Amino acid sequence: LKQYRIVVLPGDGIGPSVVAQAIRVLELISETSSTTKLILEPHDFGGCAIDKHGDPLPPSTLKACQEADAILMGSVGGPKWGPEAKVRPEQGLLRIRKELGLYANVRPANFASDSLLSYSPLKPEIAKGVDMIVIRELIGGLYFGPRQEQGDGDTAYDTMVYSVSEVQRITRVAAQIALAANPPLAIHSIDKANVLASSRLWRRVVTETLKNEYPQLTVDHYLVDTAAMLIVSNPKKLNGVILTENMFGDILSDETSVIPGSLGLLPSASLAGAPASPSDPSFKPTTGIYEPIHGSAPDIAGKGIANPVGTILSAAMLLRYSLGLEKEAQAVEAAVSKSLDDESIGGYGARTADLGGKATTIELGDRVIETL
Amino acid sequence: LKQYRIVVLPGDGIGPSVVAQAIRVLELISETSSTTKLILEPHDFGGCAIDKHGDPLPPSTLKACQEADAILMGSVGGPKWGPEAKVRPEQGLLRIRKELGLYANVRPANFASDSLLSYSPLKPEIAKGVDMIVIRELIGGLYFGPRQEQGDGDTAYDTMVYSVSEVQRITRVAAQIALAANPPLAIHSIDKANVLASSRLWRRVVTETLKNEYPQLTVDHYLVDTAAMLIVSNPKKLNGVILTENMFGDILSDETSVIPGSLGLLPSASLAGAPASPSDPSFKPTTGIYEPIHGSAPDIAGKGIANPVGTILSAAMLLRYSLGLEKEAQAVEAAVSKSLDDESIGGYGARTADLGGKATTIELGDRVIETL
Ligand SMILES: CC(C)[C@H](C(=O)O)[C@@H](O)C(=O)O
Ligand SMILES: CC(C)[C@H](C(=O)O)[C@@H](O)C(=O)O
Repeated sequence: LKQYRIVVLPGDGIGPSVVAQAIRVLELISETSSTTKLILEPHDFGGCAIDKHGDPLPPSTLKACQEADAILMGSVGGPKWGPEAKVRPEQGLLRIRKELGLYANVRPANFASDSLLSYSPLKPEIAKGVDMIVIRELIGGLYFGPRQEQGDGDTAYDTMVYSVSEVQRITRVAAQIALAANPPLAIHSIDKANVLASSRLWRRVVTETLKNEYPQLTVDHYLVDTAAMLIVSNPKKLNGVILTENMFGDILSDETSVIPGSLGLLPSASLAGAPASPSDPSFKPTTGIYEPIHGSAPDIAGKGIANPVGTILSAAMLLRYSLGLEKEAQAVEAAVSKSLDDESIGGYGARTADLGGKATTIELGDRVIETL
Repeated sequence: LKQYRIVVLPGDGIGPSVVAQAIRVLELISETSSTTKLILEPHDFGGCAIDKHGDPLPPSTLKACQEADAILMGSVGGPKWGPEAKVRPEQGLLRIRKELGLYANVRPANFASDSLLSYSPLKPEIAKGVDMIVIRELIGGLYFGPRQEQGDGDTAYDTMVYSVSEVQRITRVAAQIALAANPPLAIHSIDKANVLASSRLWRRVVTETLKNEYPQLTVDHYLVDTAAMLIVSNPKKLNGVILTENMFGDILSDETSVIPGSLGLLPSASLAGAPASPSDPSFKPTTGIYEPIHGSAPDIAGKGIANPVGTILSAAMLLRYSLGLEKEAQAVEAAVSKSLDDESIGGYGARTADLGGKATTIELGDRVIETL
């Protein structure tokens, strides 16, 4: 019997309510498995941790995360800890990424069901079949390079810096994830090599790493401005893996995330650890944070109508990447797709308000659990 | 009689052919005006200048541009001067922007006619009414900050640096352009102030400059990732002026540019000079480069089917900003809209292939000239 410690960080706003549904899914899998036991352990993180401990990432939470096999997170932030506040939830987010070495942010954008096409802002003929995974370098570049606040001076700066090894390791994660699909996914590397020195390094290292270590994969290169166009005008051209640096990935992954119609639907993983060797195409991170891409949605918090799908699919990613339970991950994904199309709840599928449905967070969770 | 010197840089690929149609428009205005005479002067720039002079921006071209009242440009670049080449057309582009001090890039994105809605990748109900002007800082930030190539070392970096006065002057241009509309446009300032020091300076200076000098204008602030989402999911929320720094502006302006359905339709201006005082809401640049947003499109160069609308509308912007001929600018814009909807050419409007039409570049130019 394999035991895994999963730290749960419910966070703020709708976080606790969507996390609750993902916990039900993980508990069901733990209970029904004869080989795997999951021990779930909640901790304070984000705005609620600022209120309780004066720190979005209290030392006890960090320690628990460092010792965990994986982390499931809800969402952090809210108007209470706005941009003017001295201590802010996103500082905790940036710090935990760095402390745990979570350099690989993985964000799929696809349609859990074709019936959701009507919610996309894109015309159906353009949106149909979109299936992208953004892989964003998460602890380098402008986010963590040397910076100077304005202070008493007249200027401020940030530095977009990358080293060869930083680009190599994220390229390998992208390659492993591309290879895990059958047939392997195409890799689209995004940079601004016609202007930026760091992008020229990026392009060179991506090209060489793939050529030397993964010659079976195909890669092309797009400038970030061209990619920003294509994601709207012809997103299928970027189907497969979109590999990019931290700041560009922040922008492009949010841009891709609105194609499937509701932010409430999409999961993410932020992973640490060296990928397996080129010959073993399954990426086994040493740890990871799994969370929906949506925010804490203070406007609907407490109403019981938040969409738990993004968090449940994040739990599926946790099963896949951190625990190696691919079969269970696919079962959860299938149960979600089926529930969204289940017309037994008044003919509209088990859908929450973001998709024009009337299901509550718990009802949609019920349906996934039943289907599973 | 006022005489103006306009330098024309036809450039590469489809550049010369689309510029030819805009020249006809400017010549017509010059011939029929009793107060204004335009002297058009062609010069080499871009790939063709590399071939002829070994330099995308030969000294004679630079000198002519420095002495001109305004510059009309086609497009530069092509596979011949690809990313591997030592001397590349875009180096000329970056250098001319810096040499002329063109710090304000102005890019409208709207529908010349509602009948073009069907070409948008967005659903009509989302696209209809989109009317944005991106104002991008063009000679600061990551593009021109200190940089280090990888070379023999292990890292490379670029610096995103802004000074108070750089942000002040671009804010004033945005304010003047917002005020020139009736009612004044809303200003949406885009940054990444939750992470970047340069963005915190940006947000502070934009806020203070508008509060102190243009209290009648409204401004809100969005994070760049949120803006990238909104442009797809709810672009009208950003109607008005989108004000942002160089790198974010490069990405977001390309993203907005695909909403109107064809890149061939959209103009741009890159302007220098101190804006007029807050009390005189008409921005008079000292010089400017006016060019379509599309590239040199080597795939269709020489076929005579390129859409000249973006270049003709760029000439309209030239009339508006550099020559102060607002009436004439509006007349050109109206003639373009009318021509696009003119069903006399086989019932499809005078539209080029990018809009599914059969008009040639010259036929569409003919129609605009006739209408004018
Ligand atoms: C909250 C913010 C610091 C964060 C980021 O920019 O990385 C967020 O936008 C994200 O993408 O996770
Ligand atoms: C060609 C390139 C250097 C340029 C830029 O990034 O500024 C282009 O993308 C633009 O937007 O005018």
